[in-house]
Amino acid sequence: MTDRLHFEDFKVGDEAVYGPRHVTREEIVAFAAEFDPQPMHLDEAAAAATLLGGLGGSGWHSCALLMRMIADGFILNSTSMGSPGVEEVRWFRPLRPGVNLRVRSKVLEVRTSKSRPEMGLVKMSFDMIDDSDAVLTTMTTTLMLGRRAPGAAA
Amino acid sequence: MTDRLHFEDFKVGDEAVYGPRHVTREEIVAFAAEFDPQPMHLDEAAAAATLLGGLGGSGWHSCALLMRMIADGFILNSTSMGSPGVEEVRWFRPLRPGVNLRVRSKVLEVRTSKSRPEMGLVKMSFDMIDDSDAVLTTMTTTLMLGRRAPGAAA
Repeated sequence: MTDRLHFEDFKVGDEAVYGPRHVTREEIVAFAAEFDPQPMHLDEAAAAATLLGGLGGSGWHSCALLMRMIADGFILNSTSMGSPGVEEVRWFRPLRPGVNLRVRSKVLEVRTSKSRPEMGLVKMSFDMIDDSDAVLTTMTTTLMLGRRAPGAAA
Repeated sequence: MTDRLHFEDFKVGDEAVYGPRHVTREEIVAFAAEFDPQPMHLDEAAAAATLLGGLGGSGWHSCALLMRMIADGFILNSTSMGSPGVEEVRWFRPLRPGVNLRVRSKVLEVRTSKSRPEMGLVKMSFDMIDDSDAVLTTMTTTLMLGRRAPGAAA
């Protein structure tokens, strides 16, 4: 238990990189077929005529892949208690077949919970980037984490 | 083409309900195993000791299911050009196995695009609710839609 990342291990300004994760056309089409079956996410010819300019994954697939990289990167080795939600997601560039993704993280804010002395809140930004470091998706969210010293002064 | 929903068909205050969508334990665990393998999303015993108080799906699974309901509900029958991102997602209650989901939508704002005369922007809120109308997830996002009369006064 004690060697897992706790609230106290996150400091404002901390940065890290997670991944990589390779994404195939088959994965992009399978996700879209299940959750977001718009033609631009399913078919090259239909996608060519859209703003994507060619087959691109669902924005929700980008979010799910980002989640998996940060889960493997640090959340599964933490006292994560989940998240109340997401402040913002921006989809800047399409998720292309064959891309190798990584995630850059930054800690924006840390604060203890008033209502739950065993919990701390860590606000973070995540940039998902491709092989050439172009930013595809950004996300700002708050993680709830267990504290080593519940109720202590922050 | 012309019978699809265009930008001009969305008016501030418009409301609708989409779904239903039934969700099984198998779907919840399969999504989590692929994208968000935290124990609270995979295993009843582990989940019982968490804030979820029992097995609950990934918040990203909630988002993906909401997306599928609005895709089937109106986006696939529209001139959708995608979305630049999401203003906010809130996860209020867990996604439980066996739930029947619906989505309530509301149009918050409509405006034409300055840079793209063929496009309009529709800001909407979506509440995903369960069998007893309890709100599980809320989302505010902007949809890009084709216009019937590109460049006309809004």
